[in-house]
Amino acid sequence: MKKSYFQSIENLACDDRLSLSEVCTQLAFNERGLIPVITQDVNSKTVLMFAWMNRQALDQTLATGRMTYWSRSREKLWVKGESSGHTQTLVSMSIDCDGDVLLCQVRQQGAACHTGRADCFYLSVDRDSQQVRVNRNPAKNRD
Amino acid sequence: MKKSYFQSIENLACDDRLSLSEVCTQLAFNERGLIPVITQDVNSKTVLMFAWMNRQALDQTLATGRMTYWSRSREKLWVKGESSGHTQTLVSMSIDCDGDVLLCQVRQQGAACHTGRADCFYLSVDRDSQQVRVNRNPAKNRD
Repeated sequence: MKKSYFQSIENLACDDRLSLSEVCTQLAFNERGLIPVITQDVNSKTVLMFAWMNRQALDQTLATGRMTYWSRSREKLWVKGESSGHTQTLVSMSIDCDGDVLLCQVRQQGAACHTGRADCFYLSVDRDSQQVRVNRNPAKNRD
Repeated sequence: MKKSYFQSIENLACDDRLSLSEVCTQLAFNERGLIPVITQDVNSKTVLMFAWMNRQALDQTLATGRMTYWSRSREKLWVKGESSGHTQTLVSMSIDCDGDVLLCQVRQQGAACHTGRADCFYLSVDRDSQQVRVNRNPAKNRD
């Protein structure tokens, strides 16, 4: 991991700008060449999903403005919504202090989750009762 | 990964409840025994940080209500804020559709980021100029 680079820039003056290509080269992709991506709805601020990008997916996302991940199960680039139509348009991207996580604000078309729910985090922990609630799927439970 | 369990519950009726201990046993901890955690401010919905938990950190977080991670660099449990005072109180926890990511809503005391910034995602990508802006650190740049 190349944390020393990100440590060196953490106290730069607020107006300093860095080259995007330089920063991308310094990102701490893991041993599989992947970096975690948190995807958040730009309007509601709901965290929609979590996925991974390799460098190619990142470059393609930045070039096209369409969220493109690396599918670990299919082992290929995954343009979100290419089959479902539930695309994500990139509005803004931020990088964390260690250069090892990306946060993307998007405009979501349709449902972010493969189940048809608006977001993927539909299992709610109830600490008091020590239970987990499965939140309603509006695509399937219309009663 | 135990995705089949999470596939089996994705269409449960909305009021169905599952045992928290059963669900935790089914979580897809990775080959290092870790699961990604997204930590979000419960009021502003700002994504504060991203970290990892092992099963012990998860159990301790659920038992105490204080966010407790696994520090990969120090290889030990990390009670957030134990040295800085910048603690995080767990308000709610959700699990994603694949059972391999946790989303925690917290009340943040002080700054979430080790740099003194409110959150860790202070490097902003500007696609138009192909530059990255280092956002101001209010703890260090007071002018």
